[in-house]
Amino acid sequence: MQLTGYYRSSTSYRVRIALNLKGLDYRQDFVDLAAGAHLADAFGAVNPFRSMPVLETGDDVLVQSMAIIDWLERHYPSPSFLPADPAAAEQCRMLYYAICSDIHAVNNLRVLQHLRSEFGADDAAIAAWNRKWIMQTLAPVERILQDMAWATDDLPFAVPGLFEIALIPQLYNARRWGIDVTQMPCIAKIEQACLALPAFIAASPEQQPDNPEKTL
Amino acid sequence: MQLTGYYRSSTSYRVRIALNLKGLDYRQDFVDLAAGAHLADAFGAVNPFRSMPVLETGDDVLVQSMAIIDWLERHYPSPSFLPADPAAAEQCRMLYYAICSDIHAVNNLRVLQHLRSEFGADDAAIAAWNRKWIMQTLAPVERILQDMAWATDDLPFAVPGLFEIALIPQLYNARRWGIDVTQMPCIAKIEQACLALPAFIAASPEQQPDNPEKTL
Repeated sequence: MQLTGYYRSSTSYRVRIALNLKGLDYRQDFVDLAAGAHLADAFGAVNPFRSMPVLETGDDVLVQSMAIIDWLERHYPSPSFLPADPAAAEQCRMLYYAICSDIHAVNNLRVLQHLRSEFGADDAAIAAWNRKWIMQTLAPVERILQDMAWATDDLPFAVPGLFEIALIPQLYNARRWGIDVTQMPCIAKIEQACLALPAFIAASPEQQPDNPEKTL
Repeated sequence: MQLTGYYRSSTSYRVRIALNLKGLDYRQDFVDLAAGAHLADAFGAVNPFRSMPVLETGDDVLVQSMAIIDWLERHYPSPSFLPADPAAAEQCRMLYYAICSDIHAVNNLRVLQHLRSEFGADDAAIAAWNRKWIMQTLAPVERILQDMAWATDDLPFAVPGLFEIALIPQLYNARRWGIDVTQMPCIAKIEQACLALPAFIAASPEQQPDNPEKTL
């Protein structure tokens, strides 16, 4: 398998975590989004959406991170991304879709670039925009987590799955744009548990070869 | 079952189509998003995300349209939202996730209201914003459809499913914001086929009791 992504694209980070949780080996290729490399004709021929990431696997070229994660779960069912208990699985799916559908697209690089060029947004306005839409969804996620029975002390569904795959990359973004994650104690506890696991450590932006500030 | 939604919320429209395709009976309740009724404490207690729609079914209160659609497919597998052929099902999922993840959130009412209040966007700027993000995804969807083998003359996957559930509400938005849908001939053909079907007709914003301009 080959994954084409970008170190700090949250959808690339999502799929790296998912591949690692399934214990799969994959090669990585990188597209420099900030330099506009996704706009090249060659990349458009592979992925007409010009979005990150792309997973090439045998004869299939998969795009759209949720479609890739869905494909991974169906082709490699163990370990599952979902808890065995049906009610817990519904909660896990709901939290996953909330983060995937309501945060990512609004804070996507192309939207931020458009805000700068068309609406004159400066760095402070861009950071405030990101914080607003991250908190619009993470604040209710935190309240839902506070009202839930947790499977373990530090993870709501015993093992990390769909929810954590979507959450952890958004917490990386949250810190980048100046959100104090510790103001959300349930979320902070889950983050701490995940960031201690090899699947999440290896997937982190800090660990990717295309990160110009690679520190680990 | 009871569906709580808003006539021109694309996620409510999505779920109405899905319920109708499964042949399910449901009552409807409406929240006036434009008047801010979703901000009331009572609605926040039901859905902490304050998003549309909510499906109440027996003991479950389901939120997030993709989670609801996923739940419907698992609880009422026939007729399926996915084509039987595995490769076609992958295409269908990919197109579905592209529309759900990349258009909806950016053009959500709360983002438009924020553009007006924080960035001084006027009606023309709001319409241009909507057109930009709709076409950013529908243009590549059209190119993908042009390169695909179709199951029938007017539907790529023989019967409408996940893809059409996501597509048709975005075409309603596209027209509302001034996009000429006929410039996308494959998409226009699919729309024409779907809008002739009872499941789509009954789900349309024009048919909903809370539409102040209800015409049909």
